[in-house]
Order: sequence, then C-alpha cells, then structure tokens
Amino acid sequence: MAEHIVSSYDNDLQGLRRRITEMGGIAEKMLVDSIAALVRHDKALAQSVIASDSRLDVLQREVEESAILTIARRQPLAVDLRETISAIRVSGDVERIGDLAKNIAKRALAIGEEFQPQKIVLGLQHMSDLVLGQLKDVLDAYTQQDTAKAVDVWKRDGAIDALYTSLFRELLTYMMEDPRNISFCTHLLFCAKNIERIGDHTTNIAETVHYLVLGENLAIDRPKNDRSIDATVNTGA
Amino acid sequence: MAEHIVSSYDNDLQGLRRRITEMGGIAEKMLVDSIAALVRHDKALAQSVIASDSRLDVLQREVEESAILTIARRQPLAVDLRETISAIRVSGDVERIGDLAKNIAKRALAIGEEFQPQKIVLGLQHMSDLVLGQLKDVLDAYTQQDTAKAVDVWKRDGAIDALYTSLFRELLTYMMEDPRNISFCTHLLFCAKNIERIGDHTTNIAETVHYLVLGENLAIDRPKNDRSIDATVNTGA
Repeated sequence: MAEHIVSSYDNDLQGLRRRITEMGGIAEKMLVDSIAALVRHDKALAQSVIASDSRLDVLQREVEESAILTIARRQPLAVDLRETISAIRVSGDVERIGDLAKNIAKRALAIGEEFQPQKIVLGLQHMSDLVLGQLKDVLDAYTQQDTAKAVDVWKRDGAIDALYTSLFRELLTYMMEDPRNISFCTHLLFCAKNIERIGDHTTNIAETVHYLVLGENLAIDRPKNDRSIDATVNTGA
Repeated sequence: MAEHIVSSYDNDLQGLRRRITEMGGIAEKMLVDSIAALVRHDKALAQSVIASDSRLDVLQREVEESAILTIARRQPLAVDLRETISAIRVSGDVERIGDLAKNIAKRALAIGEEFQPQKIVLGLQHMSDLVLGQLKDVLDAYTQQDTAKAVDVWKRDGAIDALYTSLFRELLTYMMEDPRNISFCTHLLFCAKNIERIGDHTTNIAETVHYLVLGENLAIDRPKNDRSIDATVNTGA
C-alpha cells in the first residue's frame, strides 16, 4: 500500500515535470521566433508566436491544478512539498515569459517594414541570445536540480541589464535625431524592456531551484544593476 | 484535540490574512505616493516609496513560507487549501504592484524638475486614481470573499487600458513636437505602462478571489483591449 502511494505520487510529479518541460520548450521557441519576426519583418512568424501562447496558458493552469491536487491528495512533506510548490512557481514564470515574447511579436507586426537601424537590431538580437542562454540553462538547472548552475544564471543577470541600458540610450539618441524614428523606436524600447524582464524571470526560476534543492531562499537583493532609469542623453538643448 | 487542530489552523489563516492586509495598505500608499512624487517633483516622497518596498518583500516571503508550512502541517482540503494557495498568489501580485510603484518613484527622481505637460500629468493622475480604486475594491473583495465585487473589478480593466492607449498617443505626439521632450516622455511612457500593469495585477487578484470562493477559474480570455501597440501617429513623413 505504501508503495502504491509512493508510485502515485511519483506519477503526479512526473506529470508536473513533463508539462514544465513542454512549457520551457514553447517559451524558448516563442522568444527566438519573436525576435526573428522582428528582425526579418516576418508577419507569419509573428502570428505563430501569438497563437502558441494559449498552449502555455493551458499548461500553466494544468500544472497549478495538478500541483494543488497533489498537495491535497498526497500531503507531501519537505522536499516533496517544495517540488510541488516549485512547479507552481516555475510554470508561472515560464507563462509570463511567453506573454512577454507574445508582446514582442505583436510589436513586430505593428512595426512592419519600418526602417530599423542595424545597430539596434543587432543589440536586440544579442540581448535576446544572452537571455535565451539564461533560460535554457536555468531550465536545465531545474530539471537536474543543479543549484550551482542556477546560482550561475542568477549572477549573470547583471550583463543583460547592462546591455539593456546601452540599447536604451541608443534608442533615445535615434529618437532625438529624427521624429520619424520615434514611433518604431518606442516599440523597440518596449521590446528591449520585455527581453530584460524575461531575464528577470530566469532569475526568479534560479531562485526557485535554489529553494527547491536547499530549502532556503537566495538573498532578497539581486545582483541587478539597471541604470537605464538614470540614463541621461544630450538633449541638444 | 480536533478543536485544537482547527484553532491552530485558524490562527495560521489569520496570520496570513493579517500580513496580506498590511501588504495591501503598503502597496496602495506606494502607488498614491509615487504618483504624487512624480506630479509634485517631491524627491523625499519618491525616496520614501523606494524605501518601503523592502517591507513588502519581507511580508511576501513570510506569507509564502507560512502558507507552505500551513499546507505541510495542517494538510488543509478544499476551500481551506484554496485559501492557503490564494494567499500565496495574492501576496505575489501585491508584491509586484509594489515593485511597479517603486519603479515610478525611481523615474520621478530621474525626471526631477523637467517640464511636464499638464495634460499628461492629469492623464497619469486619472489613470492612477482608477487603478487605485480597482486595487482597493479587489482587496476588499478578497477580505470579504465577495465574488461579485471581484468580477466587477475584472470587467473594469478595459477602461484603464483605453486610458493608457490615449496617454500613449499623447506622449508620442509630445516627443515628435520637440526632441527635448523625448527623455522625460520616455520615463512617463514607462510610468503609464507601470500603472497599466498594476491594473493587470488587480485583475489577477480578482481571478484569485473567484477561484478562492467558487473553486473554479474565470475564463482565460480577459476583457482587456490594449490598443496602444497599434497606435499610429502622424509621423510627419
């Protein structure tokens, strides 16, 4: 009987893990495709990113409901309870990452064929590559319950913030050079912000992995250093 | 003995509720003060908003840890389990609302004394008043477990999005009129976006209240209608 209970519980956990792996794959693809749609002006690709978000929403609901049912039925303790709670947290972050990629895809549609300075496009692409690396690594860290890898992701968030700040300044400069740039630069500003926020969610997941494995939280103060708010630009005044 | 268990459980719940009430009060004050700091160029007030965020972070950790301990120790079922899960969700949303208000306060510091068009300032103030009303109502709905009130908040989110879209267009127009407006208008653009996102979090809380009371989720598709992404402006080209 005890064995039966254990194996039912393991089945529940496997179901949670399977769904989160599927969610991670969808979110990674959404991020890659949304940036590709933006860079290549590919409307069909942008539409497909937007369409795939609903699958993420469904999976998140399933993870949450199934995790709650598991807690109620199996009454897991210690690391088992943490695993169930962590599944809820990670699925929430991955779902938000999908929302942010969807928002980039919507902006790709709105910008359309408008001129995009190559330097900005490359900057966005670079930022997105960095964040994608973070996302892959932190999802691996979650699957493998690898705290060292998670802490490494957590520490790397500062590099993304630095890139965001420099892109932000670049975009303001373009806007000031020519008012015709303002409309699409505003979209690109929000795209950059979305990528930066995806980075924040990978940091959240890293914290969850730390909690899952060690049962304690990482320090509340993050190693982040967003200087874009203080970014000053020569306004030509 | 059974009574003892019940009353321990009730104590746990009361502790969760008390912390969430405190969190709600802090988040409401942070929103009000961040907008006042922006409008009145009040640096000391902006600093106090930034300082109060850490209390929200601590309270959210406490709610989460205490809710998990409650699940592990008391193994609540049905509505009791939903109440514990809901406390985790609501505290997460309120903590994010605090982050967004803190970001507005940081931007208030960055903008400083720079000229702000009266029409924009009034628009931001109006948007923030609407969102504050939503926040108060949804926190009441949570405390009173009042689904009708929660659904009402959920439905009202469209008005905030409409206001955001019109402010967004206004800001783009100011940026195009004079490049010296670009830097602070960009900050105000993010402030408006932050207020809109606070509105989204009140909608999340409304969904949690619905789930808490009725045990089922509101429809996934929200009544929201963010048109700012498609907002087109005469670029003078």
